[in-house]
Amino acid sequence: MPYDRLDKDIQMMKAAGINVVRIAESTWSTVEPQEGVFDFSHIDRVLNAMHKAGISVIIGTPTYAVPTWLVRKYPAVLATTPQGQNHYGARQNMDITNPDYRRHAEQVIRAMLGHIKNHPAIVGYQVDNETKPYNTAGPAVQKQFVQYMQQKFLSLDVLNKAYGLDYWSNRINSWEDFPSTVGTINASLGSEFAKFQRQLVTDFLAWQAAIVREYKKPEQFITQNFDLDWRGHSYGIQSEVDHFAAAKALDIAGIDIYHPSQDQLTGTEISLGGDVTRSMKGGQNYLVLETEAQGFPQWVPYPGQLRLQAFSHLASGASLVEYWHWHSIHNSAETYWKGLLSHDFEPNPVYNEAKTIGQDFNRLSPRLVNLQKTNKVAILFSNEALTAEKWFANGLSYNEVLRSFYDALYRQNVGCDFVDPSSSDLDKYSLLIVPMLYAAPNSLLERLNQYVQKGGHLVCTYRSGFSDENVKVRTTPQPGMLSAACGVSYSLFTAPDKVTLKGDPYQVGPANNQVTTWMELLTPTTAKVLASYDHPAWGKYAAVTENTYGKGLATYIGCHTSNAVVEKIVADAVKKANLWGADQELQFPLITKVGVNQRKKVVHYYFNYSAAPSALRYPHGAGKELLSNLAVAKNQQLQLAPWGVQIVEEQ
Amino acid sequence: MPYDRLDKDIQMMKAAGINVVRIAESTWSTVEPQEGVFDFSHIDRVLNAMHKAGISVIIGTPTYAVPTWLVRKYPAVLATTPQGQNHYGARQNMDITNPDYRRHAEQVIRAMLGHIKNHPAIVGYQVDNETKPYNTAGPAVQKQFVQYMQQKFLSLDVLNKAYGLDYWSNRINSWEDFPSTVGTINASLGSEFAKFQRQLVTDFLAWQAAIVREYKKPEQFITQNFDLDWRGHSYGIQSEVDHFAAAKALDIAGIDIYHPSQDQLTGTEISLGGDVTRSMKGGQNYLVLETEAQGFPQWVPYPGQLRLQAFSHLASGASLVEYWHWHSIHNSAETYWKGLLSHDFEPNPVYNEAKTIGQDFNRLSPRLVNLQKTNKVAILFSNEALTAEKWFANGLSYNEVLRSFYDALYRQNVGCDFVDPSSSDLDKYSLLIVPMLYAAPNSLLERLNQYVQKGGHLVCTYRSGFSDENVKVRTTPQPGMLSAACGVSYSLFTAPDKVTLKGDPYQVGPANNQVTTWMELLTPTTAKVLASYDHPAWGKYAAVTENTYGKGLATYIGCHTSNAVVEKIVADAVKKANLWGADQELQFPLITKVGVNQRKKVVHYYFNYSAAPSALRYPHGAGKELLSNLAVAKNQQLQLAPWGVQIVEEQ
Amino acid sequence: MPYDRLDKDIQMMKAAGINVVRIAESTWSTVEPQEGVFDFSHIDRVLNAMHKAGISVIIGTPTYAVPTWLVRKYPAVLATTPQGQNHYGARQNMDITNPDYRRHAEQVIRAMLGHIKNHPAIVGYQVDNETKPYNTAGPAVQKQFVQYMQQKFLSLDVLNKAYGLDYWSNRINSWEDFPSTVGTINASLGSEFAKFQRQLVTDFLAWQAAIVREYKKPEQFITQNFDLDWRGHSYGIQSEVDHFAAAKALDIAGIDIYHPSQDQLTGTEISLGGDVTRSMKGGQNYLVLETEAQGFPQWVPYPGQLRLQAFSHLASGASLVEYWHWHSIHNSAETYWKGLLSHDFEPNPVYNEAKTIGQDFNRLSPRLVNLQKTNKVAILFSNEALTAEKWFANGLSYNEVLRSFYDALYRQNVGCDFVDPSSSDLDKYSLLIVPMLYAAPNSLLERLNQYVQKGGHLVCTYRSGFSDENVKVRTTPQPGMLSAACGVSYSLFTAPDKVTLKGDPYQVGPANNQVTTWMELLTPTTAKVLASYDHPAWGKYAAVTENTYGKGLATYIGCHTSNAVVEKIVADAVKKANLWGADQELQFPLITKVGVNQRKKVVHYYFNYSAAPSALRYPHGAGKELLSNLAVAKNQQLQLAPWGVQIVEEQ
Repeated sequence: MPYDRLDKDIQMMKAAGINVVRIAESTWSTVEPQEGVFDFSHIDRVLNAMHKAGISVIIGTPTYAVPTWLVRKYPAVLATTPQGQNHYGARQNMDITNPDYRRHAEQVIRAMLGHIKNHPAIVGYQVDNETKPYNTAGPAVQKQFVQYMQQKFLSLDVLNKAYGLDYWSNRINSWEDFPSTVGTINASLGSEFAKFQRQLVTDFLAWQAAIVREYKKPEQFITQNFDLDWRGHSYGIQSEVDHFAAAKALDIAGIDIYHPSQDQLTGTEISLGGDVTRSMKGGQNYLVLETEAQGFPQWVPYPGQLRLQAFSHLASGASLVEYWHWHSIHNSAETYWKGLLSHDFEPNPVYNEAKTIGQDFNRLSPRLVNLQKTNKVAILFSNEALTAEKWFANGLSYNEVLRSFYDALYRQNVGCDFVDPSSSDLDKYSLLIVPMLYAAPNSLLERLNQYVQKGGHLVCTYRSGFSDENVKVRTTPQPGMLSAACGVSYSLFTAPDKVTLKGDPYQVGPANNQVTTWMELLTPTTAKVLASYDHPAWGKYAAVTENTYGKGLATYIGCHTSNAVVEKIVADAVKKANLWGADQELQFPLITKVGVNQRKKVVHYYFNYSAAPSALRYPHGAGKELLSNLAVAKNQQLQLAPWGVQIVEEQ
Repeated sequence: MPYDRLDKDIQMMKAAGINVVRIAESTWSTVEPQEGVFDFSHIDRVLNAMHKAGISVIIGTPTYAVPTWLVRKYPAVLATTPQGQNHYGARQNMDITNPDYRRHAEQVIRAMLGHIKNHPAIVGYQVDNETKPYNTAGPAVQKQFVQYMQQKFLSLDVLNKAYGLDYWSNRINSWEDFPSTVGTINASLGSEFAKFQRQLVTDFLAWQAAIVREYKKPEQFITQNFDLDWRGHSYGIQSEVDHFAAAKALDIAGIDIYHPSQDQLTGTEISLGGDVTRSMKGGQNYLVLETEAQGFPQWVPYPGQLRLQAFSHLASGASLVEYWHWHSIHNSAETYWKGLLSHDFEPNPVYNEAKTIGQDFNRLSPRLVNLQKTNKVAILFSNEALTAEKWFANGLSYNEVLRSFYDALYRQNVGCDFVDPSSSDLDKYSLLIVPMLYAAPNSLLERLNQYVQKGGHLVCTYRSGFSDENVKVRTTPQPGMLSAACGVSYSLFTAPDKVTLKGDPYQVGPANNQVTTWMELLTPTTAKVLASYDHPAWGKYAAVTENTYGKGLATYIGCHTSNAVVEKIVADAVKKANLWGADQELQFPLITKVGVNQRKKVVHYYFNYSAAPSALRYPHGAGKELLSNLAVAKNQQLQLAPWGVQIVEEQ
Repeated sequence: MPYDRLDKDIQMMKAAGINVVRIAESTWSTVEPQEGVFDFSHIDRVLNAMHKAGISVIIGTPTYAVPTWLVRKYPAVLATTPQGQNHYGARQNMDITNPDYRRHAEQVIRAMLGHIKNHPAIVGYQVDNETKPYNTAGPAVQKQFVQYMQQKFLSLDVLNKAYGLDYWSNRINSWEDFPSTVGTINASLGSEFAKFQRQLVTDFLAWQAAIVREYKKPEQFITQNFDLDWRGHSYGIQSEVDHFAAAKALDIAGIDIYHPSQDQLTGTEISLGGDVTRSMKGGQNYLVLETEAQGFPQWVPYPGQLRLQAFSHLASGASLVEYWHWHSIHNSAETYWKGLLSHDFEPNPVYNEAKTIGQDFNRLSPRLVNLQKTNKVAILFSNEALTAEKWFANGLSYNEVLRSFYDALYRQNVGCDFVDPSSSDLDKYSLLIVPMLYAAPNSLLERLNQYVQKGGHLVCTYRSGFSDENVKVRTTPQPGMLSAACGVSYSLFTAPDKVTLKGDPYQVGPANNQVTTWMELLTPTTAKVLASYDHPAWGKYAAVTENTYGKGLATYIGCHTSNAVVEKIVADAVKKANLWGADQELQFPLITKVGVNQRKKVVHYYFNYSAAPSALRYPHGAGKELLSNLAVAKNQQLQLAPWGVQIVEEQ
C-alpha cells in the first residue's frame, strides 16, 4: 500500500457491503523479515480494524512465496524443474518437498497462528494458495519418486512389464539404476510421475491443514484456493492437482474463477468452476475466494455484468464471492490485474456496481446463500486420463473435449455434477457423460458397465477405455471392457480427411457436420448405428452408436465432431434419460439455474448473457421475484435487461 | 510383449507370407541387464521358433539405445550437444565416440554374436540403426575435432585464411586456443564440424561392421538401416550422414521409407528413397528394412494402398520389404505408430491386405526380385552443399529445391540415379541435374564443365558454384568456373518482389509464373536466353539460359520458381537429351517403372496413384501381366483400379 | 581479404570519390595474436597507402570482439546473461565490466594508439562499436548493481516501499539478501536494472574515450557508432543505450542506419536516424558511419536509390556517408550483407552509381556539408518509459507508437528534433509530441504543464504520466499531473473490441477509424472533446481531447488508432501551432528537407521516394538547382525522376 488509508478503505468496503476479507497470504518476507524474527503488527492492525468494522477475516498462510533470506540460506528451496533450477522472483517457485522450506514454512505458520489465533475477527483459514507441484523434479524429488515406485511395484520385473520398459532399452534392472524421469519417453512412467507430483500437493495441503487445525477454533474453517486449468482464464479440469483427494483435508472447498468478459462473457466458467468445486466435497457449498473485479484490461465489465456474475456464482452454490482484489496494485506482476478500485482508490463504475450487489446480498442472503442443488447428470473426469492423454494427444485436448460436453449441458440449462474415479455413488445419476477416459483400470470400466446394466444412461466418447491404469494399451479389441455396455468394437482408427457424417444425421449443416482430428472405425456388435462416416474408404464403419444393455442405454461417440453435433447428441441423451423439462426449452444466452434455499423453497435464477434485452415465459410455480420483490405467476412473462438477472423464489 | 504369443505370431506371419524378420536391435538392457551379465534366452527362443517356421532372421546389434546401468556408471555416455547434455530416456542420445560407450557396445556385440553366430536362421546382420552423430559436440568431441583440423590444416595461417577467421576477431593463433565450435558464427568452421560429425558416423559403422565381420558367415550380409531427411515423413537427402561413404563398409544398403498416405500418397518418397539407396552401392539392389504398415493414425492405408506401395518398392529395385512393425506397441514413444497388427493382435483389414502381397510375392518373386535398372539421368547431390546452404539459406531449402527437380522427373516417369561428388562415372548419364551446388571445389566444377564438353546435358541451378570446398565465396564472377559451360555471369542477386518471367515462356499461367525467394541478375556471355525477368529494375537480366559447350548443352536456372516451371524445364532438358519416350507420355498419377529381371526379361510396372480408376495404352513389346497371368499385346488398353498396379513382363 | 589487392582497392575507391575509410575495429585477434604480442603491420600498411592516396582514416578501437586466447585464459570475459554464459564466436558476447576484459582492452588500445598516433592519415577515432550491455547479468554484475542500489536507496525501507516489494514476498530485509534480478517479476526492479545496464555503456564509452583522448591530436575527433532499435532494419529509439548521456564523452555523434530498400524505400529511417543523432549533441552535424551499399539480398538498390539515399543523409545534417562495407566478405556471418563491391571485386551497377555520388559530393560539398537545421517541433522520448513499457506492453510497442507520430511528421515534411527528459530547452519548440511517457517523475510532468502554460502546444498520448520514475503507478487519477494541462481524467481503461471513433471525426473511412489495442475511458475536466468512442458501453467517454491551459494548448490522445488518424491529429496540431507552410502542402512520396549551408544560404532538398516520375511547384525564393547547375525561379515546376533528387540553393 503506497500510503496509509486503512480507515478509508474499510469505510468504502462497508459502503459496498463487503463483510469478509482475506489477508496475509504471500506476506512471508514481511511477517518474518529475517530467520526467526517475526513482525505481525500489520496483521494485528488490519484484524483490529476489520473487527471494529464488523468485517470477518480469512487468514491465508504466507507460504506460497518465499522470502529472500530463505533462498540465500537454502538455495535448494528453489525447485529444479526439467528446465533447470528456478530463479528467485516469482511466487510458486519452490520445491514443496524441500525439508528446509517445510521446516521454515511450519515455523512461520505456527508463529503467526500462535499470535493471532484468538482474534475474534477470524472466520477461517486458507492453507497456502493455488498449490501445485510446480513441476519439481530435481534429484531429491526423484529419490522420493523411486521410493514411491518401490512401494507401488515391489518387483522391477512387474514394473518393466507393466510399463513396457524393454522398449528402446529403457528396462530397469536394479533400483539403483532408476534414471531420472525428466527425459523419459515412456508415457506410463511419465504419467506415474505426474500422479506422484499430484500426490505431493495432496500431502502438502494435508500437512498444512493439520498444523492449522492445532490452532483454529471449532467454528473456524480451513479452505484452499484451488484453481482450474488456465488458458488465459479458468478453463477446465486442473491437471496438476487431484482436487477430490486434496479437498479431503479441508473443511470447505474454495476456488478462484477468472473468465472472459465483455462480449465474451457467457457464464460458462462460473458454472463449470462452481460445479467442480461443489462436487469436491460431495455437493457442499463452496467459497469463491477470488474472481475478477476489473481484471485484465480486456475484462473491464460492461454495466450490469458484475451483478450478473455475482448472482451466477450464488446460483451454482457459492456461499462467498470475493474479488481479487480490493484495489489495483501499483507495482509488480499484477499491476494490470485491476481490483474493485483503480490505482487512484476513487469510486468508479465497477466499484459503484459492486455496492448494489452488496446491498442486494445484504437484503437477500437468507434466501440465496447455501443453495442446495440436486443434479441427475454427472460428468466423469479423470486426472489419470487427462495427464496420460497429453502424451498421445493426436491433436485432441482432454479439456476441450470435456468442455464441449459441459458447454452443451450448460447451454441447454442441464445442471450437472462432476465425479471422478474415486466417486462411489454413480448410480444416483440418470445420465453419466464420460469424455476420453483414456487411462482407466478394468474395475472402473466394469463399474461403468454395471451403471448401464442397472439402468443408467452412459455417453462415452472416443479413446475411452483405450489403456489401463498404467497407460498400457489394452491387448483386447477396443474400447476394452466398455465394448460390453456400448456394443461396439474397433481395431483401426485414423485422422479424418474430408470425412462427414453420412446424411447429416444431426441436421447441423455442412460446416458443422465435419468429422475432424480423430475417428475410430467402429463395428457394432449389438449396438444400433446412429451415425456413420461419409468417405470412399471408411463408409462402412459406424461413427456414433447406441446400445441397450441391461436396463440402461449406452451411447458411444467414435469421432471428434463439432460442438453443434455434441449439443445434439447431448440433447438426445438428456431426453432419453427423461430429464428434458421446461428449463431445457430455454437455450443460451438465456441461462437458468435452480436449487433449494435454507427456507426449503425452490429458487430459480434467470440470467441474460447477452447485450440485447430478452424475455421468457416463467414455467414454474408461482413465487416472488426477489430483486424487485414482485409476485410472479406461472407462465408469466419475465423481462430480462441486457446482462440482466431475475431470481424467483417459489411459494 | 504383454503376454507370450510367439507361436500365434509366427502362425499369422506365415499366413501373410512373411519370410524374413529383424530382431534384437535396441534390446541392450534386456540382453545385458547388468554390466557383463548376459541373457540371450529371448533371442535364442525367437531364432529357434523362426527357424522351425522357415523364417529367416536379420540380427540387429543392440547399440542405439543404452541401458540404465551404463549411464549411471558412465554419465558422459550421454552426448553433450549445443543444447547441453542429453537426458536418459530417448534412444540415440549417446556420444558415439565415447570410449566407455564404445567398449561396452563392443562387449555386448561380441557376446551376442559369439552366442548366436552359428544359428541357421540368421540371414544377415544390421549394424546399429539410423545412426547419426546426434549433434555430439561436448569437450571430448571438440578435442577430436581439433586433432582432425590439425591433420587437415597443418598451418593455422592456412586455416585462418581459408575460413576468413580474421573477421570479428575469430582468428586462432595457437592450436591451444581453438575454441568450441558450438558458438561459431563462421559457416566455414561450422560446415567443417558438420562434415567431421558425418565422418564420425562413417567411422562408427565401419568399426561395428568390422566387429560383426569377425563372426558372420560368408553367405550372411551386413547392412544398415539408413534414413532420409525427415519432415514428418521421409523427404530428402540426409544431411547428417554421408550415405555413399558410410555404405562402403556394408554388403548391402538398407533404408527405411515412411511416406504420406491416404489421399496424400504419391509414391514419390518410395521412388526417391529407392533411387538414393540403390545408388549408394552403385546400382545394387537394396533392402527396405522398415516401412509403414498402419503407421501414424493419419497413415492408415486405404484399401489397395498397401499393395501399391509394396510393388512400388520392388519397381525401384528393392529386394526386401519389411514393415515397422509386426504388431502395435502398448507403451512408450511409438504406441501410435501402428504395425500390421493393431494392439489387439487380431486380423484386421491392413493385415489381410498384407496376406495378398505375401501370396503374390511368393508366386512372382523369381520374376520380380533383383530387378536391374539402367538410368540415363542422374541428380548430383552434395552433403557439403546441403549443410553449407543451411548457414545462408536466404529462404531456400536445399532439399526442397532438389525435390522440385526429383519430383519433376518422377511425375514424368523419367528414371534417375543419384550421384555425389565422390562418383566417378558421370559420363554414363545423358542428363545430369545439379541443384544448388553451393559449396564445391574447383575440381568438381571443372568435372562438370568437362561433362558438358564431352556431350552431356547439364541442368544447373542458382547458387551453384558460389563457394569453394571451405564455404568461402569465390572471388571470381559467379557461378565461378561453371561460367564456362553455362555461358553466364553475375555479380548481383536479390530477393524478388513482384517479379515474373517475361511473357510466361513456359506457359504455366500467372500463378505459376512467379519468381520467388531468390534471383540472380544473369548476364549471358555465350548463352542463349530462355527466360528473362519482368520487372522495372531487373528487366534487362536473364533468368534461365542455355549454352552449347563442346559437344554438350548446359541449362542454367538463375531463379527460384514454381514446380510447374521446373517441370517444363526438366521436360525440355529430357527431350534435348533425347530421352523422351513412350513412358514419358504418361504423367502422374500414372506412374511406370522399368527394369530387367533375373530371367533377363524387361518388366514394366504400372501404378495408379489415385482414387479414380484409370487406363493406359500399353506401348511396349507383347508380354504377360503377372498378377492376372494374362497376355498383353502392344498398344493394348490396360485398366488400372483405384490405387491399382499391373506388371507386364515382356516376352 | 582473400588475396592482396590494396592498391587496386584504393584505385577503385579514388575513382568513386571516397575520401574517408574506417579500419581496425574488431581486429583484436590480428593485432594482438597472443597476450602482449602486438602486430600492427596491417594497420601501418593501410594507413600508409591511404595517406598516399589522400584518403583519411578513422581508427576504430578493436574491443568489441575478443580474441580466442583472452577467452581461454579468462573464461569469465564471456558475459553471463539470463540465458546462461555466452559461447565464443559472435562479437559483443563479453561482459563489458569484466576486469580482465577491461585491462586487456586498455592494453591493446594503448599499444595500438601509441604505435599509430602520429600517422597523418588519421582524421579521428571511433571507440568500440555499437556498444551495448549485451544483457550482462552474472553474479559479478549483480554485485555492482547492489552497490548502485545502495547508493541510490540508502534505506531498504525506502526501496521496498518505492518498488512495492512486499508483493509476493519480494521484500528485501538485508542488503546481503538482495537476490539476482534475473528472475524478478517486479517491473520497478527490472527497469532499474535496465537503467543500470545502460549506465554501464555510458561509463564504458567514457572510459574508452578518456584513454583515446590521451593519444589523439586536438584536430582529431572521437566518435561512436551508435545504432537504433533493430527490427531487421533500423527502426526506433535504442532501448539499451542512453544516447544523449553516452554521447557526452564524444566529440561528434556517429550512427549506422540500415533501412528497407527497393519498393519499401521511404527514407523514413534515414530521416529518423539523422534526427536522433543530430539531437544527441544539440543539433550538431553527425557522421553516418555505416549504411547499406547492396546490403541484404532484398536490399540491392534500384537504379537511382543509392543516390537518393546519400543526399537524404546530407539533408538531415550528416557530414559523412560511409558504406558498410567496401567489398562483400567471403566467409562468416556477413557474407550476404553485401558491400559496394560484390565478392568478385569487379565494378557493378551499385559501385558505378556510387561513383556519381562521389563526383557530386566532390563538386558540391562546400554547399552541402555541415547543413544547419532549425526545427520548431520536437518529440520527447524517454528510455525509462521505453523499457518500463515493455513490462506492461498490453499489446502496445513504445517504438511503434513513437514511429506513428514520427512518420506522420515525416510524411508531411515537418522537420523535427528529439529531446529526452534531460533536455533543458523545451521552450524553443512550438510543438512538443510526447508518446507513451509511461514512467516519469512528477518534475517532468510539471515541466510539461509549464511548457503548455507558457504557450507551447503539447500532443500527449495514452499511458503518459501513468507511473512515476520508479515505475510505480500513481495513486492519483490519471494521467497524473498531466491532468492539469490536458484537462482530462480517467480511472478505467480497456482493450477495445469493435470500437470506433464516433462519426469518423478525422474522415479516414471505416478501415482507419478503428480503435485498437488500448483505450482509456476519458472524462474531460476542462478539455474540449475532439473525438469520442462509438460503443454500447463506452459511448459516453472521450477518446481525444484538446485543452487550453495558460497560453498554450494540450491535445490528449486516449486511444490507439490508425496511422491515418495520427496523421490527421498531427496535421491539426501543426496547424494550430502555426507551423503549416508551403513544404507541408507536399506529402510523401515527395519529401523536402531544408537547412542553411556554410555559405549561410538556404538549401532545399526535394526527393521523390517512388518509382513514378513526379513534379512539384517550387515555392521558395529563386535559386540554383545544384546537381544540374540550372537556375530555379519561385513557383517554377521541378521535375523529379523516379527515385530522383533535386537540390535548390536559394540566392
